[in-house]
Amino acid sequence: MKKERIYLYDTTLRDGQQTPGIDFSVEDKKAIAAMLDEFGVDYVEGGYPGANPTDTAFFKRKQTARAKFVAFGMTKRAGVSASNDPGLSVLLQAASDAICFVAKSWDYHVKVALGCTNEENLEAITASVTAARMAGKEAMVDCEHFFDGYKANPEYALACAASAYEAGARWVVLCDTNGGTQPGEVAEIVNAVKRVVPGESLGIHAHNDTEQAVAVSLAAIDAGVRQVQGTLNGIGERCGNANLVTLIPTLMLKPYWADRFETGISAEALGKITRLSHTFDDILNRAPLEQAAYAGISAFATKAGIHASALIKEPATYEHVPPETVGNRRRLMVSDQGGKSNFIAELERRGIKVAKDDRRLDTLIALVKEREAAGYAYESADASFELLARGVLGTIPLFFRVDSFRCMVERRFDAAGQVKTVSEAIVKIEIDGELRMSVAEGHGPVNALDIALRKDLGRYQSEIEDLELVDFKVRILNGGTEAITRVLIESHDATGARWRTVGVSDNIIDASFHALMESVVYKLMKNREMAGQLAAE
Amino acid sequence: MKKERIYLYDTTLRDGQQTPGIDFSVEDKKAIAAMLDEFGVDYVEGGYPGANPTDTAFFKRKQTARAKFVAFGMTKRAGVSASNDPGLSVLLQAASDAICFVAKSWDYHVKVALGCTNEENLEAITASVTAARMAGKEAMVDCEHFFDGYKANPEYALACAASAYEAGARWVVLCDTNGGTQPGEVAEIVNAVKRVVPGESLGIHAHNDTEQAVAVSLAAIDAGVRQVQGTLNGIGERCGNANLVTLIPTLMLKPYWADRFETGISAEALGKITRLSHTFDDILNRAPLEQAAYAGISAFATKAGIHASALIKEPATYEHVPPETVGNRRRLMVSDQGGKSNFIAELERRGIKVAKDDRRLDTLIALVKEREAAGYAYESADASFELLARGVLGTIPLFFRVDSFRCMVERRFDAAGQVKTVSEAIVKIEIDGELRMSVAEGHGPVNALDIALRKDLGRYQSEIEDLELVDFKVRILNGGTEAITRVLIESHDATGARWRTVGVSDNIIDASFHALMESVVYKLMKNREMAGQLAAE
Repeated sequence: MKKERIYLYDTTLRDGQQTPGIDFSVEDKKAIAAMLDEFGVDYVEGGYPGANPTDTAFFKRKQTARAKFVAFGMTKRAGVSASNDPGLSVLLQAASDAICFVAKSWDYHVKVALGCTNEENLEAITASVTAARMAGKEAMVDCEHFFDGYKANPEYALACAASAYEAGARWVVLCDTNGGTQPGEVAEIVNAVKRVVPGESLGIHAHNDTEQAVAVSLAAIDAGVRQVQGTLNGIGERCGNANLVTLIPTLMLKPYWADRFETGISAEALGKITRLSHTFDDILNRAPLEQAAYAGISAFATKAGIHASALIKEPATYEHVPPETVGNRRRLMVSDQGGKSNFIAELERRGIKVAKDDRRLDTLIALVKEREAAGYAYESADASFELLARGVLGTIPLFFRVDSFRCMVERRFDAAGQVKTVSEAIVKIEIDGELRMSVAEGHGPVNALDIALRKDLGRYQSEIEDLELVDFKVRILNGGTEAITRVLIESHDATGARWRTVGVSDNIIDASFHALMESVVYKLMKNREMAGQLAAE
Repeated sequence: MKKERIYLYDTTLRDGQQTPGIDFSVEDKKAIAAMLDEFGVDYVEGGYPGANPTDTAFFKRKQTARAKFVAFGMTKRAGVSASNDPGLSVLLQAASDAICFVAKSWDYHVKVALGCTNEENLEAITASVTAARMAGKEAMVDCEHFFDGYKANPEYALACAASAYEAGARWVVLCDTNGGTQPGEVAEIVNAVKRVVPGESLGIHAHNDTEQAVAVSLAAIDAGVRQVQGTLNGIGERCGNANLVTLIPTLMLKPYWADRFETGISAEALGKITRLSHTFDDILNRAPLEQAAYAGISAFATKAGIHASALIKEPATYEHVPPETVGNRRRLMVSDQGGKSNFIAELERRGIKVAKDDRRLDTLIALVKEREAAGYAYESADASFELLARGVLGTIPLFFRVDSFRCMVERRFDAAGQVKTVSEAIVKIEIDGELRMSVAEGHGPVNALDIALRKDLGRYQSEIEDLELVDFKVRILNGGTEAITRVLIESHDATGARWRTVGVSDNIIDASFHALMESVVYKLMKNREMAGQLAAE
């Protein structure tokens, strides 16, 4: 059976821009458009030229090579001709392959928001689509509030869709603008729309207000639409849009869909979708959602419990898709509930071979249990786990020894009568028998310690230049200011590697210092491991 | 038409415990069970007694008043009788109203994971359900891997469900353990199962691996199941379980469901679901997901753009449900018109009267917005909000003035060669024109500062003797060690009053000191207010 093609339309740069707290610069937009283009989506909607300086600048030139580059904007205003509408004129002149017009399709909004008659709105749709086609562009129409509009006045909503199609729009997109329509309703309404527009020309634009943007999109595809709009990591207005990072693997990997449909994404590109998702979060400067479908660090993780030991026997029967198909990996969480086989599997993945009857393995397990009882969380700190394991099972060079540290925070009024807080840290370390003392100021004591620790590592200094802290999490384990504190630090370097370390103490500074130090040691160890591999090749 | 009842089954404390990074203490479990019970779910699954010390301790007594309290555990092992199975015996003796047995329903797993015959597994289901009923408990069976099992061997999967039902299980729960089954497949398979178990006895347990746990659960309800399992905020193994905070409002507020179904949750309780969701995140010490459906701070937010101005004209046509029905509120990023009455209501609750046209009210609103943009979270820090409001609108006595503080953490080797960390703080405050300087050591810098600050408050000292810090939470707002830090402190005193204060700074010590100081000032202010009230009586 020939598979039907589903067209993927990315609106990260337009609807995604409506996310509270997200504002893209022109440079951000260029980077994201390039990523999407390389990944292989069919359409990249870049924004709304004329609406703001960023988007106007972004549409000065075409930003994609393979994907069609789309400008978004309103249909022409009522009462002026298409050639006299300045907004439409900006859209026509933008360097895009296609124009996506947003058109009202709920009669109530035509009256209240546009203040024109129903007929004027239909004429505006026809005239705008015609003008785009005359300018040599592919035209499409986002029918705003389509499902709510259909419920209020089905004839008028259908008339809007029909006007767009009859004027020559390649796509008529049914938008669930308020996000509350249920999958069953969407299927029913799509079936009604197919009486005036064929499914091959219909698209779906869903929002996540009932956590069903993906399900609504898939229900619409099942009912016949062939274009689906969404965003990277599901960003978008309010609760977000349909998440393409979930939709695409589902369409390509789940037989229920993949047996019937195909997309323009290659299997190879799909294998990079986890990285795409995380790189996008890097651009947004936020931590990837751990529990995200397919791409989350926990998406293929199993904690010790009733499943872990059986999972090792036959992973495929415990995983709904193979993690490597989306560029993710299986994670067996090491924790105090974990069995011996968990430990061995986890160590092997890290290139550490150990026999099941090796006594040192029992020592390691006992140590992990003891540390976790004291508050360490090795399942969230892979690098600290590896350091502990290598320490017990093999050898890690003693790169440096911390002799002492001291840090000081002082708040007082300065000479001008302004409150001023100063944080200073002093770190004394011994390298190759030589004591080195560094001092630094920082934003707070941990920052000062971090700077001082990495200021002078002697012969190792050049190796840690690209080490960067990207996240710092503090958890108080048992309440009150006398509590045990757990600090988790995430670091990365220029190779793109990321690792996490943990420190636990009744003193937050002590805990932070421990995690900082382990991050540095891990980096030095990794450098050596990589160099060793290169030498062996 | 009489509505059909949907039974809500919460597994936050059991499947939620499988979430990487989440470990509940007995105290956490008690607090969460009490919240769920008050909220009105039908079943609270508390954990797996016998599997670990926490769960065993938790099941020493019944932890719910209204909801049925459920113990989870495996069916009896093959080859031993029910009365000789130690695991089953622990389950039967746990202080629960019901037992939920997890049973294999995929023949492959029966062979590989259990290592017994298909018939022995069916016998184990029958014997376990019978034993639970004989012990006077409601019995239910989670059919693990049901959908994958059904695809592999439909007859055997159905035989497992039928055995459970025929032995008298109140509920036979179809579990999509690996989380990849699509809504359309679930509907089809539920219809097949109804040939052996009536829908009134069927439940659904879905995972979010394709971001469709909510959609799968709803599809199963549409197909006939009447019990739905889920967790608070969708926590759970891998990508999580069906999110009850989304499912419940959808079932109760969306006509597509609400016209046909009802739950045990009252409209009043539903109006507190946003708070429930955020309080749960507080227990987990994590920031609520801003874009979460219904409960997220962005769920009813509209950014300046094509919708904002029209939204002001008629909010109902831009919101899929009224935000107040779930205890959330509309947020217009441009001009928050709804804000003013919100503030007046909040202040009145605290006994602060203010006229709507009072200029100082605008000052307060502007100040709160500015501070919240900088990272303050007044929703979680009632005492800090009240201090800010009273500062702007009325007067708070200047009890004392902080001149300066200094704290120092030092780690070094002592004379005996042992690593030793010392934290010391010095606080200088002015009371009645007199400078008082106190010094203290503590477990970490914050503890030292707390002790030093409260060591000598002059004539106020006796008033704060009963002040005690009960919780201290640190959240890093934007990653990295140079990030903004928010500290939330909870205090209480001998009267049983509890209050929370907040401090925000790029310096964790500064932020902590601010929150500590506000806690002391709040206590002094409260003492005066109470004394004033007593005098007036």
